[in-house]
Amino acid sequence: MDWGEIAQHRLDDIARCSLDGPGVTRFPFTPEHTDALEVIRAWMERAGLSPHLDAAGTLVGRSTGSGPAVLIGSHQDSVRNAGRYDGIMGIALACLALEKLRSEGVSIGVPIEVLAFADEEGVRFPTALLGPRALAGTVDRDVLAMTDQDGASLGASLDAFGGNSNALETLARKRDDVRCYLELHIEQGPVLETANMPVGVVTGICGIERNRVTFYGETGHAGTVPMQGRADALVAAADFISHVHDTARADPDIRATIGTCAVSPGVANGIPDKTELTFEVRAPDDGARQAFAAKMDLAAKTFAGERGGHHVFENTYHQPAVPCAEDIIDRLSEAVMATGLDPVTLPSGATHDASAMADLCDIGMLFVRCRDGVSHRPEEFASVQDMGMAIDVLAHALSSFQA
Amino acid sequence: MDWGEIAQHRLDDIARCSLDGPGVTRFPFTPEHTDALEVIRAWMERAGLSPHLDAAGTLVGRSTGSGPAVLIGSHQDSVRNAGRYDGIMGIALACLALEKLRSEGVSIGVPIEVLAFADEEGVRFPTALLGPRALAGTVDRDVLAMTDQDGASLGASLDAFGGNSNALETLARKRDDVRCYLELHIEQGPVLETANMPVGVVTGICGIERNRVTFYGETGHAGTVPMQGRADALVAAADFISHVHDTARADPDIRATIGTCAVSPGVANGIPDKTELTFEVRAPDDGARQAFAAKMDLAAKTFAGERGGHHVFENTYHQPAVPCAEDIIDRLSEAVMATGLDPVTLPSGATHDASAMADLCDIGMLFVRCRDGVSHRPEEFASVQDMGMAIDVLAHALSSFQA
Repeated sequence: MDWGEIAQHRLDDIARCSLDGPGVTRFPFTPEHTDALEVIRAWMERAGLSPHLDAAGTLVGRSTGSGPAVLIGSHQDSVRNAGRYDGIMGIALACLALEKLRSEGVSIGVPIEVLAFADEEGVRFPTALLGPRALAGTVDRDVLAMTDQDGASLGASLDAFGGNSNALETLARKRDDVRCYLELHIEQGPVLETANMPVGVVTGICGIERNRVTFYGETGHAGTVPMQGRADALVAAADFISHVHDTARADPDIRATIGTCAVSPGVANGIPDKTELTFEVRAPDDGARQAFAAKMDLAAKTFAGERGGHHVFENTYHQPAVPCAEDIIDRLSEAVMATGLDPVTLPSGATHDASAMADLCDIGMLFVRCRDGVSHRPEEFASVQDMGMAIDVLAHALSSFQA
Repeated sequence: MDWGEIAQHRLDDIARCSLDGPGVTRFPFTPEHTDALEVIRAWMERAGLSPHLDAAGTLVGRSTGSGPAVLIGSHQDSVRNAGRYDGIMGIALACLALEKLRSEGVSIGVPIEVLAFADEEGVRFPTALLGPRALAGTVDRDVLAMTDQDGASLGASLDAFGGNSNALETLARKRDDVRCYLELHIEQGPVLETANMPVGVVTGICGIERNRVTFYGETGHAGTVPMQGRADALVAAADFISHVHDTARADPDIRATIGTCAVSPGVANGIPDKTELTFEVRAPDDGARQAFAAKMDLAAKTFAGERGGHHVFENTYHQPAVPCAEDIIDRLSEAVMATGLDPVTLPSGATHDASAMADLCDIGMLFVRCRDGVSHRPEEFASVQDMGMAIDVLAHALSSFQA
């Protein structure tokens, strides 16, 4: 059995730590989480690590040795009815890369920690990333009062699980104690599949902004108001939707999505007087993202005016981009080349634990090819061969670190 | 007090036959309907007509004389929180035109009937036009079992009101007994106001079709799927919405409206895989309407294909156009000219009692200017001057009929 096959066996095994139903459902600070950590603890021990649960519910497996450590992590939790790879695969492959190096008698020049974070998906509580934020010293204590659908607070759930909500601040690492943070993750998109590559080196985690774009016009009876006299808010919004998409297509670094469209009055025979859109933009470069959004705001003004109405553009959320460290991109790219492949780089459009770890240290990520771009569903799939390749790449990269 | 002022007084008076709340709320077969008919009965008597309630709840006021009659009508009911003109103004002005001719000693060469229909708006029961359909012999008895929100059936409500649901068929008129049907109505749109004309002669009632146009694409994470690989159903729908509007603007006889837009999955970070629109088309000519819809179906196919998806186009409703009779258009136009105005003609985009009467006889309609195109709201307004002009035009037209 090769390392990729072992990875698949382990992922099949830990997939049983789940609520019933299709796929995997494993929320933080639950009996399923406890079961999963027992499995992960064994993986860590086989990799030569000493595991302990920290105050934030992160299972931390540390190797011997002193000095600044290389941290490798991802999350144990899943969305509801998830696949077997998102998050947990990063933990499994990190342990296997270390076990492989150990089996080959290769020693690493720096201490290593594997981190099995509790909560990245933000499904049980309306917050996420408690573990990496605790390490980075960026926890907002207000989140501890947030409750799940049964009324249990995050703080109480963490404490009952074996964490210690009063001690979160003690987890903050000194920058000097950490070399960098690495994360392996399934791509959750189609880029590597299209490029026919098993793995890809992430250049950075895109910044995200969400805007509410509302077009206003004038309602009237669809039968009695001639076309010439209309100010149809949905038509202005439609002009905008097509334009956003076409402009973003022409820019390889922009991902722009209009995912919702609410029309008022919303009846078949009423001319729309209001159409509200969510307009999300992601880009690896914050300046490029902001420039794109500003250009689209101007375009919206033009479309609204041309259709006889006006518009309001409001930012509702934004999160800056997190670039991966050049040094780590190079190190991972060299490791990819060492396996005989051309390194492919790509940005991460989605957020990961690495986003929060970037407040503490340099970060780097390796993506593993995803079948059909499908994630967050039971059909999510990464092949044994690709996982084997990812283990090789990570092992090679880890062995390159010198004290 | 001139005739327009009398009209306004009468409309203010009958506006009190209403449920409480802003504007007028008068549903069929209610105490408010009974109160309104008492007022209308008096109007009819002053016009020299003999009123009686028919089996369908229509108050019919007939003049003396035999031979084919000219019928003039509209509806007494309103939507919730309506204005003081829609429907009821047509009854009031018909009575006043006859009262004016009578006061001037002018006799009309044919018998006249004023018809105060019970239900045109279709608010209390999910059906409408019982009165004109009974006269035309086109009542579908199934509607009698339809219930209002309190569970009362249309049939029982009609019978309790003083109608006779078992005798509806006896109301059907012989074609030889009817000369034509005329209806005065507030325009409910901005055409006459834009043309600066108090009244307009209707050329026909537009045919209507409603279609469900569904665009299908492929969903995916807004962050992880590059623009190039997307099949965004909302973008295809947006292309379609703008194109429909622009194409209809270029055709003076078409009114095309997309009033609803439902996006799936409908989240800010999900690429839309389905977008369902209602696509309504109205035109005075059925062939032109159908050709327009077919052209838009083809365009939808092109847009869907260009955006990497497909579409489904389904007709959900259609109602043929009802042309007004040339003879009546001419007669009303001559009457407009006799008042010193240039006759303006326009189609009716909305349905009226005349639509159902067209199954029995020739129809004609006269529209009265509407302020700001506002209807079905308390702010609905027609001026005293315009109503006076409409009374003059109708009186002139009525006096032109010969036995």
